[in-house]
Parts: sequence; structure tokens; C-alpha cells
Amino acid sequence: MKILIWNENEHEMSNALVRRLYPDGIHGALAAAFKDDGSASVSTATLAEPEHGLTEEKLRNTDVLIWWGHKAHGKVSDEIVARVQQRVWEGMGLIVLHSGHFSKIFRVLMGTPCSLSWREAGEVERLWVINRNHPIAAGLPPFIEIQHEEMYGEPFTIPEPMETVFVSWFEGGEVFRSGVTFQRGAGRIFYFRPGHEAYPTYHNLQILQIIRNAAHWAHNPLPAWRTVNDAPNVPHGQAPVPLQVKGPRLHEDGEAGYR
Amino acid sequence: MKILIWNENEHEMSNALVRRLYPDGIHGALAAAFKDDGSASVSTATLAEPEHGLTEEKLRNTDVLIWWGHKAHGKVSDEIVARVQQRVWEGMGLIVLHSGHFSKIFRVLMGTPCSLSWREAGEVERLWVINRNHPIAAGLPPFIEIQHEEMYGEPFTIPEPMETVFVSWFEGGEVFRSGVTFQRGAGRIFYFRPGHEAYPTYHNLQILQIIRNAAHWAHNPLPAWRTVNDAPNVPHGQAPVPLQVKGPRLHEDGEAGYR
Amino acid sequence: MKILIWNENEHEMSNALVRRLYPDGIHGALAAAFKDDGSASVSTATLAEPEHGLTEEKLRNTDVLIWWGHKAHGKVSDEIVARVQQRVWEGMGLIVLHSGHFSKIFRVLMGTPCSLSWREAGEVERLWVINRNHPIAAGLPPFIEIQHEEMYGEPFTIPEPMETVFVSWFEGGEVFRSGVTFQRGAGRIFYFRPGHEAYPTYHNLQILQIIRNAAHWAHNPLPAWRTVNDAPNVPHGQAPVPLQVKGPRLHEDGEAGYR
Amino acid sequence: MKILIWNENEHEMSNALVRRLYPDGIHGALAAAFKDDGSASVSTATLAEPEHGLTEEKLRNTDVLIWWGHKAHGKVSDEIVARVQQRVWEGMGLIVLHSGHFSKIFRVLMGTPCSLSWREAGEVERLWVINRNHPIAAGLPPFIEIQHEEMYGEPFTIPEPMETVFVSWFEGGEVFRSGVTFQRGAGRIFYFRPGHEAYPTYHNLQILQIIRNAAHWAHNPLPAWRTVNDAPNVPHGQAPVPLQVKGPRLHEDGEAGYR
Repeated sequence: MKILIWNENEHEMSNALVRRLYPDGIHGALAAAFKDDGSASVSTATLAEPEHGLTEEKLRNTDVLIWWGHKAHGKVSDEIVARVQQRVWEGMGLIVLHSGHFSKIFRVLMGTPCSLSWREAGEVERLWVINRNHPIAAGLPPFIEIQHEEMYGEPFTIPEPMETVFVSWFEGGEVFRSGVTFQRGAGRIFYFRPGHEAYPTYHNLQILQIIRNAAHWAHNPLPAWRTVNDAPNVPHGQAPVPLQVKGPRLHEDGEAGYR
Repeated sequence: MKILIWNENEHEMSNALVRRLYPDGIHGALAAAFKDDGSASVSTATLAEPEHGLTEEKLRNTDVLIWWGHKAHGKVSDEIVARVQQRVWEGMGLIVLHSGHFSKIFRVLMGTPCSLSWREAGEVERLWVINRNHPIAAGLPPFIEIQHEEMYGEPFTIPEPMETVFVSWFEGGEVFRSGVTFQRGAGRIFYFRPGHEAYPTYHNLQILQIIRNAAHWAHNPLPAWRTVNDAPNVPHGQAPVPLQVKGPRLHEDGEAGYR
Repeated sequence: MKILIWNENEHEMSNALVRRLYPDGIHGALAAAFKDDGSASVSTATLAEPEHGLTEEKLRNTDVLIWWGHKAHGKVSDEIVARVQQRVWEGMGLIVLHSGHFSKIFRVLMGTPCSLSWREAGEVERLWVINRNHPIAAGLPPFIEIQHEEMYGEPFTIPEPMETVFVSWFEGGEVFRSGVTFQRGAGRIFYFRPGHEAYPTYHNLQILQIIRNAAHWAHNPLPAWRTVNDAPNVPHGQAPVPLQVKGPRLHEDGEAGYR
Repeated sequence: MKILIWNENEHEMSNALVRRLYPDGIHGALAAAFKDDGSASVSTATLAEPEHGLTEEKLRNTDVLIWWGHKAHGKVSDEIVARVQQRVWEGMGLIVLHSGHFSKIFRVLMGTPCSLSWREAGEVERLWVINRNHPIAAGLPPFIEIQHEEMYGEPFTIPEPMETVFVSWFEGGEVFRSGVTFQRGAGRIFYFRPGHEAYPTYHNLQILQIIRNAAHWAHNPLPAWRTVNDAPNVPHGQAPVPLQVKGPRLHEDGEAGYR
């Protein structure tokens, strides 16, 4: 399983606190989740690299992409977002973390605003496991407690999830669907809430375990669905039950449809 | 209930066959679905009008938008697509017909390719009611038969629907999920397959009944959710359970988050 | 819309506190939700009545059944549970309240344990609206606060809901999917968490509004699907596409299948 | 992965045609699906065995149960159905085949009638893959054709599936959702339509491949959720946020709730 961890990597450059928490970048901390996972090979990419480190070739060789972004969502090129979306449709898994709820890639895959309410007060977050034996929750206790986290509150404007795996309780009184799954084309998507850059959340072993579990869950070993965008014409003579044409036609056999 | 029927209206201009079938345009034929519906007021709009007939004001005064497009998907302005999407999120119902599967508005709301296979051979389509007592199926027999239709075949690359109301059987051997529901933000969406421009499908009273049923189902009478895109900051002193700030912060109370 | 409110009505008989809170029974308090609703006619039934007040005729004339039970789940006759289930399949709406999560009728409709964790400590419950413009949430603010309620905690072992409308936050640290929708056959089902008998929850106007909203949402005006259990044989000569029989057969045309 | 194939095994005893098609029983034919699967160990059980071959111990040592039944659904003991249901809730996978749609175990897990229409005419069935890269569809072409099968037609009264993997086209004009997934408790369920006892369907290598794929998909390697039925009381002093009791109580700390 080839994992690519993408990180915007801007806070780490500009903010001493974040740099101290994540001296190897958030992507570096996330990579540690897989260091004892013999079945995973991990690489990283950041916004500042050419093509944001997300070249056609790199994406073609990625089974699961993990995404962390926040202040620079707008700097991500639309062309590269379309490229990532295409790979998700073909079957690449995608794990979107925390402030990535407002990333272009998550928004175009959901088709919704992906908005929420928020507060940065270092409060307690407790993630409850809702779907106890889901592969993403493997090895977890009934809940995980994080002593200091940013609050995200409902309504979280996403489509109704395929599965709700975690729901969070916040000290200040809000709740949030913190772990939710979706499928788009052949690609499985997991959104996972925790991970504010001002706190050491990605050094929490339980959080890393969830991310590792999610990568395995999102991995689709089947061959990429390269033709997922195609709209093939099936000529009447090649129908499963061959037909004679009846009535008028606007199109010729085998022609490309309109888009 | 204020219904707006949007039609690309290009085939009617350029093709004598289509013009003969739909002398008032496909939008005109669809409007007939509501002529005895005392609770509906219907208007129409076409691509050629300024802003495609989809001005801010017009959309603000629309409860349910019905969409037919085919050869001119690419001519629809991205800005207006975003405007329609915003209104769906706010609660406007949307009914996407036939070749509208490849419309920009349907694709951005689904987040998937919306591709399928197809054939224009005038074959028989039989729509089976899967969810018998669904409001969209009100008044229908177990199945509807259309003598001449274009074939659309699976896989139809949409997200798993909220509900599958109709599945079609085609004479040439294919099947298709022909009536499927979704929700995005506060807006309900119904995709309905039949309606190739070369056939008189929109003069079929059962088809018109389904479209009328769908409009009623998609209508959300609650006030528009104008703030659906907002990501409000909830200051620690105004939390449901007021808090003291713990630990470091990157943001100030009440500031706007990153997008 | 004919609403039938069913209440076990045992705590009211045996416990002075509950009797003081609900002198007309919990069913009486719930009936008040509809007193200004000109479109609803309400009746009530209790466990102690013949056939628990749920005769064939009574159920046939019920559009939406509201269910409150707790200590006497085991006293409800299996035959009457099957009768109620049949009516839900035919299209009768069902609203299951609070401790009704362990009622026979909810369990047979879900096919799951419907278990949860709980605590009776009079703590604060805050119900967040997740699906803001859902008909069941009409007229509500972003959250509802109840000063004293019993806690129900996840995991709540139900199938993944069709829609999650409310999620609760509890003072003691738990969360719960407090308002969830399902469909079984033609019947819509809403489970709604609040309503411990030791607190005045069913005198809370917001709670009553939700229950009233839910009744309207659950009401399916289409004719009852009386044949929902049937497995009709379609003889080969009466197929939509008439057939000749090919190969061997074990059954005769028109015979009843095995059950 | 420990697979248990359960077969009613009545047609094989009473009907020469079925015996000739399945000399080792339908269970024997199904077992062949796994003969080259090094990760699966397969055993079989039939109705006539003590406890139908489904002892507590046998089920505790089963990861995935495959179920074929038809004329003897009513002979399966309710006690054993409850035992199987409990194991599904704990995480055992379940694959229900063909006429098993009316088995007690499938009906109690779905909570719906599971009815459909049918015809035994040896007609062509074509199964279309709807969810192309789903693990259950691994290795398949766009559709599978079976020359002679029994027809099952919609409406199939099941809850809206988690995923629709296959939809069938029948020569006589009907359609059917032939491969659908569900989850109940921790257990994954796959219903798969083909397999009438009068035809050699279970000697079709593509059909066997789907059943093998489904077994791998349904296998949950996590430890069994033995406490899935429990409703634990969480005393106020042991809440995640310890509480003082406020207001009146009907229950004592740690007592068992009502069922």
C-alpha cells in the first residue's frame, strides 16, 4: 500500500509554536503512524513543491492520499484538485484531516459547503466510537479523550455519510460527527476531525492508530478505473440483446455523446 | 410552490424533429405537468436569456428548479452554476432530467463523474417502482412502459443514493437506476432518467405525473438557509458551557477562519 | 391525519412522582402537542386495555402511531407487535420515544439489539440540530437544552439511519444520536430520545414541537400497501415480455411460493 | 477465515433433478468456491442435523455463514434463528442466497417482509455490476449472464441497502436488486439473488467468485462484540465528567435497566 501524505506546511514555516510541536512538519508526524506498518510505504508532499508534489505520476502511484491543509486552501491549483478528484474516482483512497473540511478537494467531492462552527480554546474533546467494530475503529476503547483541541460544532454541512464512525463531545457544549465515510466513483473517503496545528494531537498514538486504520480501510487493491469518466455508446448491433433501430435518431452509432 | 423550468432549448431551434415534438419547447411540455396543480405557479427560463434566465432574484423566488440540458452543458456559465448550487444548499429543490446527468450543476452537486453508457435505438424502457409508496411514485402502477426511449446503462457513477425510487429495464438488455434522490445542504435533489429529445416522452402523462410528484417532494417550505456557507467562530465566553481558554491559540475570538 | 398515542402507563399508576408530573399520563401530555394542530385528530391507548388498545380496526384507522414504553416491554403481546409491524410496512408512520428503544416493536423493525448505555442523574442534555432544514426540525433554534434528563450514550446499536436529525451532548460527557429516521416497507420511523418519566420533558414546548413535526413527516397519505407481504407468481404468459418456458421447473404457474 | 455453509438440503433429498444437478448438495457445490482459497477453511451444516448443525460452539467458531433455504424456512427453530442473529450482531458475516430472502434469519435482520414477485421459466438473467470496484465485484466483467434462472422481480421489500452492488435484468421484463449489502450490529450482510435449485447456477464460476468475494468482504477480523446486547448503567461518579445527581431518580446506581 503506497501512502502519500500531503501537507500544506505553511504554519510550520511561519509560526514558532507549530514548528516546535511539529519539527518535521505535520506530514512528518503523520508519517510516524506507519513506521511499524510493514505493508505501507509512505512518502510526503507539500504545497511549495512543483505541482504541489502531486504530479500525474506520483498520484498514479498512490493508493491512499492523506490531506492536511488550512490557511492556504486557496493556493491549491484547480487543475491539481481536478487531478486528485479523478484519482479518487479511479479508486485512490482519500483521508481528509481537520481543517481540510474546507479544502477544495473535499468540497468538490462532497458537493456541499462543508461548513461548521468553531472555537480555539484548548478544550477537552472526547471522541466516541459509534460503529464499534468498524475497521477504522480497530483496537480502540469506547472513547478517546484529547485534553486540548479546537472545537468544531454542528451543523457540519456534508451529505449524509455512508457510515458515522466517531462523534465528538466538546467541553464547551458542542457535538460533531468527527469520523465519517463516503464513496465517490471507486474511491473511499474518510474525514477525520482532530488535528489543530496548535496542539500535539498528531503525536497521540490513538489518533495515529485511527489514521493508520483508515488508510487500510480506504485502500482499494483493484486496478484503477481509468474509464470512470467515459460515456460509451453501445451500438444497437452490439447490445446484449441485439436490436433493430426503431423511430428517429439524432446520433450515429458509436459517436461521442454531448458533455 | 414556485417552480422554474429551465431548458437549454437548443435542439428545438436546430432540429425539425424535436421542434415538431415540442413546438413550445421541452420547457413548454414540462410546464403542462402543473397546469391542473393549483398549488404550483410555473415559469420557464432558457440558456439564451440574459444570465440564462437564472438571475439572483429569479432563483431567490424559486422553490423547485427543473433542469433539462444536453448539447450545451459547456455553455452554461460557471458563475451561474455556483449560484444555483448555493440556492440548492439553501433549500431549493432540484429535479435533473435525462441528459442533465452531465450538466455542470448535477456534477458539482454529486462530486462524481455521473457517467453512464447509452444507445439511441428507440427501444422499449420499462420503469419499475422500487419504493412503492414513496411520494414521488404516488398514483403509479407497478411499472411504466415507454415504447421508444434512448437507453442509459449502468454503471451510473453517482454516489449511493438516499433512496432508489425507479429502476429501468431496457429492451436491449441494460438496467439503470432511473429515479434517485439526494440531499445537499438543505436542498433535495431528484434525478429522473427519461426524456430523450427525439421522442415524445414529455407528453406521457405518467412521466409528467412523476415530475409533478417530484416537485412536491423536493419543495422545502422552511425559510432559506442563507448562512449555509458560514463558519462562525463561537467565542469561549459564549460557548453553551462558558470556558476559560487553555493552552496556546493561533486565532482571536470572533475572527474569520481560513478558507 | 389520525394519530394514536400509545403509552404503557405503568409508572403513572405505581409511582407518585411520575403521577404528579403526568396526571393525565404521558399519553395525555403528548396529546397536548396536537391540540392546536387542526390537521390532526388524536386518540390514545394503553397497555391495560383489551388488545393493548391496538385492535385491528384501530390500527387500520391510524396514520401515525406514537409509542412510549419502559418497564413493561415484556408484557406487550407478540401477536400485537406483529400487527403493528404489519401496519408500519403498509405505510403507517411510527414515532418511538425514549425508553421505547428497547420495545419489541422497535427491535423487530430495526433487526438490531438497540442497546445503549445510560445514567439517571438529572443532568443537562443539549440536542443539536444536525439536519437544519429537515421537516422534523422545523422552527427550532440551533440547539435545545433540557435541564434534567436521563443520559443515553453511544454506541446505540441501530442500523445506520436514513437521516440523523439530532445528536445530543450530555453534561456527564456522553453523546447520542437522539433523532434518527428509518423506512421499513412503506412506513417511516422516527426514534426520538428525550422523555424520562421522572422529569417534565413532555411539558417542554420545543420537545412537543419536534414530536408534532415528526408526526407530519411520518404521515404517508398514500393508500395502505395491504399486499406488502405477498410474493406473487407472474406466469410466463403474463410476463411484461411473454416467454416460453425453457428448461425444467419445480413449480406450476400461479402456485404460491414457499415461506 | 472460517466459513460455514448452511443448506436446508431438502430438495436434494426429494427431487431427482436437483439431486442430479447437486449430487453433493447445494452446500457441496458452494464449498467448491473456496477450494483454491488458501485463507478459507470451510465446513457445512444442514437442517436435519442436531440443532440444524448450528450449535453455540460451531457458530462461535464461524467468521462467515452462508445460507441457502427454500421450502423448509418454517422448520428452522426460532431459538436457533435468535442464536444466529446474536452472532451476526457480534460480528459474524452472513451471506444469504436466493430463496433465503424469505428465511427467518434474513427477515429478522431486515425488519421488513422481504417479499418480491417471481417466475420459474428458465429465462435469461443478466447481472449488471453497479458498484464496479466494490470488493464483492472484484475480477468481474461489466455484466454476468445466466442462461436459465428463476425470475425475482421488484419491489423487493428490504430496507434501503447500504450499497447496491448488482442489479439484474430478466428476459421476461423485470429488474431486481440482486446484490445488496447491510450491517446489523458489527455484522456485515450480503444478499445475493441467483441460485434456483432447478438450474446449475452454483456451478457457474463467476457466481462462485462473487460468493467467495462476498465472504472476504463480510469477514470482520475484530474480536466478537459479546456485549452487544448490554445496556450498562454508568454511575454518576464514574461518568467521563463526574456529576452530582440532580433531581429525582427512579433507579439506583448500577442497577439493570428494564427490557
